[in-house]
Amino acid sequence: MKQLHAIVAVCISSISFTLSAAVDLVVDSERLNQTMTAMTSFGGTAYGASTRVAYSDANKEALIYLDGLMKKAGLTTHIDAAGNLVGRRPGVANNLAPILLGSHVDTVPNGGHFDGIVGVMSAIEVATILQEQDVSLKHPAEFVVWANEEGGKTGSRAVAGEVASKEFGLPSLGKRSLEVGTGFLGGNLENIADVKRSPGDIAAYLELHIEQGAILDRKALEIGVVEGIVGIRRWNVTVRGTVNHAGTTPMDQRSDALYAAAQFMILVREVITEVPGTQVATVGRIKAFPGAPNVVPGEAVMSLEIRDLSMDKVSTLFERIQAASQKLAGETGTSFLFEQFYESLAAPTDELLRKVIESSSDSLGLSHQRMPSGAGHDAQSLGTICPIGMIFVPSRDGVSHSPKEYTSPEQITNGANVLLRTLIKLDSELD
Amino acid sequence: MKQLHAIVAVCISSISFTLSAAVDLVVDSERLNQTMTAMTSFGGTAYGASTRVAYSDANKEALIYLDGLMKKAGLTTHIDAAGNLVGRRPGVANNLAPILLGSHVDTVPNGGHFDGIVGVMSAIEVATILQEQDVSLKHPAEFVVWANEEGGKTGSRAVAGEVASKEFGLPSLGKRSLEVGTGFLGGNLENIADVKRSPGDIAAYLELHIEQGAILDRKALEIGVVEGIVGIRRWNVTVRGTVNHAGTTPMDQRSDALYAAAQFMILVREVITEVPGTQVATVGRIKAFPGAPNVVPGEAVMSLEIRDLSMDKVSTLFERIQAASQKLAGETGTSFLFEQFYESLAAPTDELLRKVIESSSDSLGLSHQRMPSGAGHDAQSLGTICPIGMIFVPSRDGVSHSPKEYTSPEQITNGANVLLRTLIKLDSELD
Repeated sequence: MKQLHAIVAVCISSISFTLSAAVDLVVDSERLNQTMTAMTSFGGTAYGASTRVAYSDANKEALIYLDGLMKKAGLTTHIDAAGNLVGRRPGVANNLAPILLGSHVDTVPNGGHFDGIVGVMSAIEVATILQEQDVSLKHPAEFVVWANEEGGKTGSRAVAGEVASKEFGLPSLGKRSLEVGTGFLGGNLENIADVKRSPGDIAAYLELHIEQGAILDRKALEIGVVEGIVGIRRWNVTVRGTVNHAGTTPMDQRSDALYAAAQFMILVREVITEVPGTQVATVGRIKAFPGAPNVVPGEAVMSLEIRDLSMDKVSTLFERIQAASQKLAGETGTSFLFEQFYESLAAPTDELLRKVIESSSDSLGLSHQRMPSGAGHDAQSLGTICPIGMIFVPSRDGVSHSPKEYTSPEQITNGANVLLRTLIKLDSELD
Repeated sequence: MKQLHAIVAVCISSISFTLSAAVDLVVDSERLNQTMTAMTSFGGTAYGASTRVAYSDANKEALIYLDGLMKKAGLTTHIDAAGNLVGRRPGVANNLAPILLGSHVDTVPNGGHFDGIVGVMSAIEVATILQEQDVSLKHPAEFVVWANEEGGKTGSRAVAGEVASKEFGLPSLGKRSLEVGTGFLGGNLENIADVKRSPGDIAAYLELHIEQGAILDRKALEIGVVEGIVGIRRWNVTVRGTVNHAGTTPMDQRSDALYAAAQFMILVREVITEVPGTQVATVGRIKAFPGAPNVVPGEAVMSLEIRDLSMDKVSTLFERIQAASQKLAGETGTSFLFEQFYESLAAPTDELLRKVIESSSDSLGLSHQRMPSGAGHDAQSLGTICPIGMIFVPSRDGVSHSPKEYTSPEQITNGANVLLRTLIKLDSELD
């Protein structure tokens, strides 16, 4: 009986230590931001940019540095077949599916120091503080640096089983193909099936990332609780009118395709903004034919992109734009043709994870707001196989993919703390 | 006294013959349209186009044919230094400056059978009928086939003294440079100064041409009395906004340069159509930067062209567009920059010539309307040194520079008859 008491006491003590210590736990801000700075040595340029494209020498050197940090944090590491660096921490109940924390460290050419990096360094800091404070979690935890996010989310899509073998030979943003680059990092795309996980294999996926927009910055908010990664559809819109001599054709005898395209751009804005919500639409590319200053254009071709968290809403908005275009076509003597050429489905985050992120932010006294992610992230790939949660921290002026990208050390620490507390709460709330 | 009587009788007889015959004179429609058809053998293609670009073999062969027609009409012909084919008919008073009739037979690649050709064949028919009917005119008359109209009005601009030596080496629409091509036709650009005429050297210039617009065709009118060749100014318009991520930038946080450009195109149309007149404005070329479907454009560059008979009106309209753009810039968070890159001054026709064309049309029972020429013509070059007059005949559907170009034999005959009667009346009205 004494022995049993002792065992119970040890268990209770262990449990109470875990919970009480965890509730108020915060990351080591100084250490976190030192590792952020250390990362600038891998592909950082003299004028403040980062060029650490996927599969580059700088990418590999960064992974070696991160592998060292992970090992110091007590993680068991390996590079998987898709080139992802994975560090695993055992749980008290190792039969449970792991909770994953991740992001990426590859950049676009001439990119910034924060996109992706903030999430990776914060996740490693979370692993480090958990070890330092000897915190036990029920679930195993895996800390992942995804391969080639900027060039097509290759690493995370591989885990979702979405990378087809026909992609292997494709070029990356650097000099190596996906296949050669993955091998260079220590993976092997021929064994890519080994990394595929199925629903149930992962308990949850958490990612901290910079917003890459200006909503938090403009409102001086500290945390964005991501409602999901928006879905995207893109069309080529062809307007056909009548090509005419710009000197001999009176204004009232023109069927000017570019003028009709201009009216189309106005109506797109009207349709998109007349209903409440965070939906966006963009015309980013345009060409008029024949494209001479002295010819009334007979044809204009534009891109149209609509993004929203709800694919149904994307469909509804597109139908309204299409209907309004038919009316415009009648008024201007033109025709409109829409050809969809791209679709990326929306990836909503899990409501439980959103609530845990919110309560974690509250426990830290941090202001927060729910918002969509207009940009794509690795979390999107994971969304097809497990519950996902995303935490945003502010981007100064909303700038991203640029040397001007900036998130302050304090803002990064806030994000890392929310990540830490969300993991701990989630560990107890998930089975 | 008998002898004197006889001389007077001869004189009276001669004069009365000239006037009475001339008043009712008409061209030989069948002959005119046969020569029109004959011209299709020089550069005509199997699918109905004409490719008889300036300085080509087909161009030279056509000039040889036309030289033969001119000689048959009693004209003294030569190729001048600028490559123009000139046929001269003496006047009763050879000390008077000549009246010129002309147009061109060079085409754009894959062009039509009527642009220019109608004016040349009609002028030669006028010379032929005058000889056939033994009509004496007070003024000498010169019938001119201008060189390289489509490639820059080289022949007529040479007569106005406007061709600079730096142009000599420029390419034409065919394989020969201006200099080599002129030599090929029998001219010599080194002696170009010989063809220059000064104010007073030419009594008047008359040109019959197809409208190249649809005003006459739509109104079923037979003759256009050209008020002048419109002036043209062209600008590059640069709109600068803020480049942004199309996913992460809410609609109300965008300074979308292309959206502002769309609003600009709408306001151009508003400004141009809110005042009475025949002015036209065209945006024919546009580019958005960076020009990707998933990026809110930070810059858009367009062409803007304004044409009118009055350069003052062109200025006023441009100033209104500029002022409205400043307002638009404020509303959209963008800036507008205008850079003029082209100007062609308006060339008004002479009021006396317009009236003579109108009364000639009336004498033939032909419907007519005054109108600007939105396109450029050789008459524009002549406008700087002598009074000019232009006669338009309808273009079916306003189509030009295309194998679909069409003016009926009857419409061509109408134009030739107006040209003939205008020349005869002008001869008596001018000193």
